[in-house]
Amino acid sequence: MTFQGKTTTGGVCAPRGFKAAAAACGLKASGDLDLCILAAEQRCAAAATFTSNAFHAAPVTLTGAHIAEDGFLQAVVVNSGNANAWTGERGMRDAREMADLTAGATGMRTSDVAVASTGVIGRYLEMEKVAAGISEAAARLDVKGGGDAARAIMTTDTFPKEVAWEYGGFKVGGMAKGAGMIKPDMATMLAFVTTDAAVEHERLARALRYAVDRSFNRITVDGCTSTNDMVLAMASGISGAELGIEELQEALLRVCSRLARTIVEDGEGATRFIAVRLHEAASEAEAKRAAMGVAESALVKTAFFGGDPNWGRVVQAVGQAIKDADPLSMRVKICGVTVAERGEASEVDMEKLEEAMAGRELDLDVFLGRGEAAMEVWTCDYSYDYVKINAEYHT
Amino acid sequence: MTFQGKTTTGGVCAPRGFKAAAAACGLKASGDLDLCILAAEQRCAAAATFTSNAFHAAPVTLTGAHIAEDGFLQAVVVNSGNANAWTGERGMRDAREMADLTAGATGMRTSDVAVASTGVIGRYLEMEKVAAGISEAAARLDVKGGGDAARAIMTTDTFPKEVAWEYGGFKVGGMAKGAGMIKPDMATMLAFVTTDAAVEHERLARALRYAVDRSFNRITVDGCTSTNDMVLAMASGISGAELGIEELQEALLRVCSRLARTIVEDGEGATRFIAVRLHEAASEAEAKRAAMGVAESALVKTAFFGGDPNWGRVVQAVGQAIKDADPLSMRVKICGVTVAERGEASEVDMEKLEEAMAGRELDLDVFLGRGEAAMEVWTCDYSYDYVKINAEYHT
Repeated sequence: MTFQGKTTTGGVCAPRGFKAAAAACGLKASGDLDLCILAAEQRCAAAATFTSNAFHAAPVTLTGAHIAEDGFLQAVVVNSGNANAWTGERGMRDAREMADLTAGATGMRTSDVAVASTGVIGRYLEMEKVAAGISEAAARLDVKGGGDAARAIMTTDTFPKEVAWEYGGFKVGGMAKGAGMIKPDMATMLAFVTTDAAVEHERLARALRYAVDRSFNRITVDGCTSTNDMVLAMASGISGAELGIEELQEALLRVCSRLARTIVEDGEGATRFIAVRLHEAASEAEAKRAAMGVAESALVKTAFFGGDPNWGRVVQAVGQAIKDADPLSMRVKICGVTVAERGEASEVDMEKLEEAMAGRELDLDVFLGRGEAAMEVWTCDYSYDYVKINAEYHT
Repeated sequence: MTFQGKTTTGGVCAPRGFKAAAAACGLKASGDLDLCILAAEQRCAAAATFTSNAFHAAPVTLTGAHIAEDGFLQAVVVNSGNANAWTGERGMRDAREMADLTAGATGMRTSDVAVASTGVIGRYLEMEKVAAGISEAAARLDVKGGGDAARAIMTTDTFPKEVAWEYGGFKVGGMAKGAGMIKPDMATMLAFVTTDAAVEHERLARALRYAVDRSFNRITVDGCTSTNDMVLAMASGISGAELGIEELQEALLRVCSRLARTIVEDGEGATRFIAVRLHEAASEAEAKRAAMGVAESALVKTAFFGGDPNWGRVVQAVGQAIKDADPLSMRVKICGVTVAERGEASEVDMEKLEEAMAGRELDLDVFLGRGEAAMEVWTCDYSYDYVKINAEYHT
């Protein structure tokens, strides 16, 4: 199923019924925006997917509870600069207070407020700063606030990530943050999706799961699944547009895919975007395992940083992931050029290939010759700056 | 069981009955030594463990067949600069020819010669150069040749890796190479262990497996299991010393441990050696999964390069590996200092801790509070030079 539509502006505030605002309350030493509120005119059907890491940060636990209560949310408050993870009981109290303060400042119920945090693990939130930021943001809520909100949730991101899509009768908007500690599994770093379509909680949850599995769960920057991952969707229903489940899935997937792609494009230190496609696998699970094995290989990622078509490292990663793979049935293509097949190197015009690899976007296709299943995942290269960013991002 | 003994010199030629020699035959553009032969005076009981990667390089397949024939070997020929992997039928012919040429030059049976290769994947061996190297090395075999042999098997290694241990009545020697594509699983990059103890094949194989599981299989540089990994042991029996299985296991483990440690110390671009110990796990398998998860985390490795006690990244990795871990029962120590416990940060004298972290060797202890099992694994940090080495090591 496909349906028409076009991109539009406004990010999470593009759909009718949503306002946002941000504040710089001092959680980031840089003085940049570090807190935002996204609020709806009325209560929204809501759904979320969360990190599969055993250690759920306090805001992840709280938001899960608030959605579980009745399937509705009306606002989400997000801070960057501090993940509020591994902060014990005090961390849970702080997350609850963030919801309370936001509810108080906007006239909502505390249980209709979701909370999300991103930043350093293991440090208590400075609640005076947070409280001031919430007051300030709540007073400034505006339908044009989507851009500021997208900036406020950034950590090592180098650009804000937002998208919006307009269909006949309804819109879907989204924003995300993430550049490192990115190997989503059930969810990703923070992403927020809004729509003014009329959807109840169960259908929204089902469509969100569909979209997340096919977008955020297919990217990796460094193989590390964060403690704070959260993708949150809210549907205001204001457009009155009622969608079939397939339309809804497709609409959410477009937004999630675009956001997931921008996270990889902004991967820490990344100079290249790499699409890894595994074809002819025995199952989707096998295709994903092998694709992720290639996408997470430090050797593959550094080779691609160097512009080197080092397919030996690609087959090494495939052979590590699929213990009974057969080289004789395999084929490897880099940027459309076959570089190895039937267990040996192919004759390649290296000059042409290196030219094809000079771009910022690289395609890597591996054909396993084992079946019909396929999977595409996205990753980026490893550069000096990946090391620099992560050696200098001090606790 | 422990027993006495002391380190000695000579590497793989320390035990009686072994000679070695190396040649520079032009496989390495640098002109360094790139081929060696290790030969025994008489046929030796032999055993080996090989890579778990699906794609066995040609020499891995050939050597496995030669040992399987009757459990004996008399020599091993090794080249660096070319892995002879993903080279199809021609690669198998080339590996067989290496064994033939070595057998011819030394007066042995072809099936008593093991072959090992390390270097770039997917390129055919230049057999004229190899043949010249084999002739040259065979003509120079000497009981003092262990050091040259250890140098000839290096690729991105920055120093040769050899060790020898002397007991009352027998000796054990070894050499290894490896710095990148290191995450052994059943075996590691190339390592060769010799002894003059009297041991038959089955007992040697059992003791080697014991030693490899506790040494090479507990290290990781970059999480990548090579196509060419091989640990080969040969026992000449010339000392006449007959060992119990426990003594033999212990003797092999000492040599394998030392070699495994030097591989990590020489990890590509490494500035620090990191011992990751998982305590109080529910099982050894769980302890190893979590320890390897921490040891392979790009975020942990870059933090330690920066001298940053970023334990948030350590717990992130543990929580990713053990999906039902409980922060409230956990404790994390860096260089002996407790930095987090019961789900929160501990009060830490940061100045003292940063001083402790300034050294080249770092200890990381994680207590899970789930059981009695423990596991120690070794890794190194990720530095700018890791990226440099792997972006510039062109195919």
